[in-house]
Amino acid sequence: MKKKQNMENETIRIVPLGGLEQIGMNITAFETESSIIIVDCGLAFPEDDMLGVDLVIPDITYLIDNRDKVKGFVITHGHEDHIGSLPYVLQQLNAPIYATRLTMAIIENKLKEHNLLGNVKRKVVTYGQYINLGDFRIEFICTNHSIADSAALAIYTPAGVIVHTGDFKVDYTPVYGDTIDLARFGELGKKGVLALMCDSTNVLKPGFTESEKTVGKVFDSIFEDNEKSRIIVATFASNVDRVQQIINAAKKQKRKVVIEGRSMINIVNTAIELGYIQIPEGMMISLEQMGNYTDDQLVLITTGSQGESMAALSRIAASIHKKVTIKPGDVVIFSSRPIPGNEKSVSKVINELSMKGAKVIIQDTHVSGHACEEEIKLIYSLVKPKYSIPVHGEYRHLIGQGEVAKKMGVKKENVVILRSGDVLEIGEKSAKVVGHVQSAGIMVDGLGIGDVGNIVLRDRQHLSENGLIVVVLTLERGSNIVLAGPDIVSRGFVYVRESENLMEECREVVNIALDRLFDRGVTDWSKMKTEIKDALADFLWKKMKRNPMILPIITEV
Amino acid sequence: MKKKQNMENETIRIVPLGGLEQIGMNITAFETESSIIIVDCGLAFPEDDMLGVDLVIPDITYLIDNRDKVKGFVITHGHEDHIGSLPYVLQQLNAPIYATRLTMAIIENKLKEHNLLGNVKRKVVTYGQYINLGDFRIEFICTNHSIADSAALAIYTPAGVIVHTGDFKVDYTPVYGDTIDLARFGELGKKGVLALMCDSTNVLKPGFTESEKTVGKVFDSIFEDNEKSRIIVATFASNVDRVQQIINAAKKQKRKVVIEGRSMINIVNTAIELGYIQIPEGMMISLEQMGNYTDDQLVLITTGSQGESMAALSRIAASIHKKVTIKPGDVVIFSSRPIPGNEKSVSKVINELSMKGAKVIIQDTHVSGHACEEEIKLIYSLVKPKYSIPVHGEYRHLIGQGEVAKKMGVKKENVVILRSGDVLEIGEKSAKVVGHVQSAGIMVDGLGIGDVGNIVLRDRQHLSENGLIVVVLTLERGSNIVLAGPDIVSRGFVYVRESENLMEECREVVNIALDRLFDRGVTDWSKMKTEIKDALADFLWKKMKRNPMILPIITEV
Repeated sequence: MKKKQNMENETIRIVPLGGLEQIGMNITAFETESSIIIVDCGLAFPEDDMLGVDLVIPDITYLIDNRDKVKGFVITHGHEDHIGSLPYVLQQLNAPIYATRLTMAIIENKLKEHNLLGNVKRKVVTYGQYINLGDFRIEFICTNHSIADSAALAIYTPAGVIVHTGDFKVDYTPVYGDTIDLARFGELGKKGVLALMCDSTNVLKPGFTESEKTVGKVFDSIFEDNEKSRIIVATFASNVDRVQQIINAAKKQKRKVVIEGRSMINIVNTAIELGYIQIPEGMMISLEQMGNYTDDQLVLITTGSQGESMAALSRIAASIHKKVTIKPGDVVIFSSRPIPGNEKSVSKVINELSMKGAKVIIQDTHVSGHACEEEIKLIYSLVKPKYSIPVHGEYRHLIGQGEVAKKMGVKKENVVILRSGDVLEIGEKSAKVVGHVQSAGIMVDGLGIGDVGNIVLRDRQHLSENGLIVVVLTLERGSNIVLAGPDIVSRGFVYVRESENLMEECREVVNIALDRLFDRGVTDWSKMKTEIKDALADFLWKKMKRNPMILPIITEV
Repeated sequence: MKKKQNMENETIRIVPLGGLEQIGMNITAFETESSIIIVDCGLAFPEDDMLGVDLVIPDITYLIDNRDKVKGFVITHGHEDHIGSLPYVLQQLNAPIYATRLTMAIIENKLKEHNLLGNVKRKVVTYGQYINLGDFRIEFICTNHSIADSAALAIYTPAGVIVHTGDFKVDYTPVYGDTIDLARFGELGKKGVLALMCDSTNVLKPGFTESEKTVGKVFDSIFEDNEKSRIIVATFASNVDRVQQIINAAKKQKRKVVIEGRSMINIVNTAIELGYIQIPEGMMISLEQMGNYTDDQLVLITTGSQGESMAALSRIAASIHKKVTIKPGDVVIFSSRPIPGNEKSVSKVINELSMKGAKVIIQDTHVSGHACEEEIKLIYSLVKPKYSIPVHGEYRHLIGQGEVAKKMGVKKENVVILRSGDVLEIGEKSAKVVGHVQSAGIMVDGLGIGDVGNIVLRDRQHLSENGLIVVVLTLERGSNIVLAGPDIVSRGFVYVRESENLMEECREVVNIALDRLFDRGVTDWSKMKTEIKDALADFLWKKMKRNPMILPIITEV
C-alpha cells in the first residue's frame, strides 16, 4: 500500500459490467495499472421481451482483454444475482474466488453442476479477514441480509478506501450470526473513506426494515391457529434463516419437516451440513414418508413463492405434482412478497390453491433483506464517504440514493450514477467517467450462449403476436414455370377450421402477384419473394387487420 | 309483480357469462320463464399467455338461444370491464341499453366508433328511478366509484329483491355528486333482500378506502412545492373526478391545462359537455399551444399511468412522442397504482423519465375506487341479505367476501360462489347451481373474433420461445426421388452469422432420415414428415437443448 501523502494524486478505475441496464447482473471491476479485482458475478433473468431466453450473463470482453491483470473474484453473498454467472464467466476467465463459508458452499454446488469444481481456486474468508490481491487489499465485514454469511467489503486501493455494502440490511436481532458490524463502518469512516457503494434497492421506502426475527413470532401464531391442519410454507430457496424459523415453529408442535423443490433441497442440505440450520435428528423426513403422518404432524417447506410455473408449489396448486395433493383444510403460507413482474403468476397460484379448498395466508410472514432509507442514512453517517456511487437497483433507486447521499452531506457533484460499461476514474481530487467498454448482457438460450440476438428476438416477438404463413413455390430451372404450388402453410395464425377458405384466398393473391411478376418478366427470386410477401401482407391487413410473418420459399428443379 | 305470499315458491335464475374465469368480463343474466335482463357487458384484457390477442369478449350463445326473452342491458357504470363488449355483443343481440347519464354518454362514444349508434335503443336513467323489463323491475341507486354516475341496482324479481352493488366504495365527501345512498340500502334491507351481489375487489384489504377528496389536498401541496416546474400528471382516462382535482390545483397556480391521450380526450370532453367537469373558459389549451406558455404555467394530464406501451406518457418517456419532450426539472406525477401485472412496465417508464432528469412522484395521489372490508361489512349490515353471491374479483376475493358475509350473519350454506356459465336457481327456499351453459371467453385478434383458439395460442407460444425451422423438400411424383432440397430456413432460432454451419448440419440430419425412409420403402408423406421432424428435434435438443417448431413441407412435381 502506498503512503497517504502519495494517495492524493492516485486514481483507480471502477467499471460495472452489469447493473443498471441488466438489473441483477451485479459484476464490477476495480482496476489499477497492474491489477483487477472483480466484485460479484451475478446473472440477470430475462426481461419480458427476451422471448425464450433462459438467463442473461455479462459480456466480459474487457476482462478477457486484460486477463493478465485479473487477480480474482470477490463475492459478497450467495444469491443468483451475485454469483449466478460464475460458471459461465470462469470458463472464459479462470481466476480464484474469495467468499465467506456459506457463500462458497453455494458456489461450489454450482461449480459441481457445471463440472468446474476441480479447476477453480477457492478461498473461504471470515469476517474481519483481509486478503491481498495485487494492488488491492480487501476486508470482509459482517452484514445482515436474507441469506446468512453476507459481507460488505472495505476495498483498500492506492487511491483510498472504498466501502461496498453488497446487499444488506441492519438487523439487531438476526436469526443466525451477528448484527451488521456497524462499529467497523464507523471506524473506517473515522479514518476516511473515498467512496461508498451502497445497496439502493429499498431506498425509496421510508423508515427501517424489520428484523427477520419478527417473522418467527408470526409463524408461531399461525401454527397455533391452525394446529390441526397440514401446513405448507413457500419461501425463497436461499433464505436459510426463514427456513430455520419455520423449523422452530414446527418443533413446538412436534411436526415433521419436509423440504421440496430442487434448489431448496440443495441449499437447505448445505446449510444443515455447515451448521447454518439447526434441526433435531429425525425431524426432517422425505416426501415419500409423508404418508406415515397425520396433517397436524406435518409442515412442507417448498419453493414457488413467486408463482414460478415449474416450481414445486405451482405444480402442487395445478394438481400436476406427483406426490402432494391439496385438500380442503390445508394451510398454505406465502412467506415472501411478489417480485415486481410476478404478481399475476402469484395470484394465479393463490386462486388455484383456494379453489381446492386451501386456506392461503399471504400477510406478515415476510420482511425484506434490503435496507430502507433510514438504514442507508445510518451507513452514510458512519462511513462519511467523499463520493457516493449508488449500486443495486433501477435507475430511480440509484437517483433516490443520490438524494439521500446529498442530505447526508455528500456534495452534489460527488454523487456518481454509473451505467453498465462506464469507466469511472476516481481519486481524492476527482471522479469522472473517462470511457466506456463493451458491456451488453449476453443471452443464454438452452446451451447457446450469445447466439440469440435482437433479430432473433424480433422474429420471436413477431411470430408470437401474429403467427406465420409459409408460401412454397417450385419453379422449373431456367424457364421459371411454376411446377408446384403456391402451397400455403400457416401456424399460430388462425384456427384450422376457419382457415380453409382463407388459405384458398391467400393462394389466389399469390397467384395474381406471380402473374404480375411474370408479365413484367421478373425472374429475380428476391424480387419475387418481396412481391409475394407484400401482396399477401396487404391482403391480410385489409381483410383481418393482422400482420403474420410471411415466409416465401422458392425451390427449383 | 307477484304478491309476497306467492314469492316463497318462486325461483329465478342467475347466470354469469363472465367473471371468475375471465376477470373483468362482467356480464350476468337474470332469467325468469319469460324474461331475461343482462347486467353489464364488459370485456377482459388478454392474459399473459394469450399471445397476440387484443381483448376477450363473452360467449353469448346462451342469450342468443333465448333471444326472444331478452329485455335489455342494464349497465352499472362506464368502465371497460362493464361496457367494453357492448359493441360486439349488440351486433349479435340487439336489445335496449339502460344506464345513467355519463355512463350512457361513454357507451354512445363507443357505439359511434363501431357505427352502431343509430341501431340501438337507449334510455338514460336517474338514481331512484325504476324501469320495468318483463318480469323484472330495476331501481338505480347512487354509489361512489372512480367514475361518476356509478349505480347499484335493486332488482325486483318474482323470487324477491336482489341488490347488486356494481363496483363501489363509500365516499362521504365525493368530488362530484352525492354520497352513496346508504339509507336506501337500509330501507331495502328492512323490507327484506333475497340476495346481495357485492363488489369483492378490495375485500382482502382491512379498513376503509379513503375519500377521493384526500387526493386533492396532496395535489395542492405537490403543486406548491413545484411551482416553477412544468407538471405532468398521468391517471386513468375515465377518472373524471381525478381530472377535476388536477384542474382545481392548476387553477390555484393559474396554470393552463393540456389533455393528451385519445381515450382521455374523449372522456374529458364528454364530461365537460355534460357538466361533470367544471373548467373555466380558456383554461384548457391544445398541445400545439403549449409553446406559448412557460413551465410554471402548464399542467399536462395524460394517459399511460399503467405503463401501457402505446399510451402518451410511455411515448413521452421513450422520446417518441411528437410534441412533448421531457427536460430536467419536469415533475411527473403518477396518480394511480399499478394494476397487478403492470408493475414492470410502470417501472420502465419511471426509469426512462428519471434518466431524462424528470422528478417522478408516485406516492399519495391515488385512492382506490373499491370498498375495503369494513365498507363491505357496512353494506351487509344495511342490506341483511339471505344469500351472499360475491362478484367482481378473483376467486380468492370471492372466497374472502364469503368469509365476511358469514361474519355478518349470512348462513354458511347461503354463500354462493359462482363460476362463469353456472346456472344458479335461487328463491326463498334454496339457491343451487342447476346447470352450466357455454361461457368461455372469445378472443379478438384484429378483426378476427373467435378464430384464435388454443391450438393457435400453443403454436404462438412455441414459436415465441423457440423459433421455427422450415424444411422444404421437392419429390418427383410417383418415384419419390428427391428433386430439390432439403432446404432449411429458420426464423427466431439463432443469429444468422452463427447459423450457416448449423443449417448445414440440419440438412445432413434430414438427409440421413430420408435415406432411412427410402431404405424402408416409406412413401407416405405424413410418415416422412414425422420422421424428419423427430430426427431434427432430437439432433437440436442434444446439441443445443432447444426445441424449435419444425415444419416439414413436401411438394411434388
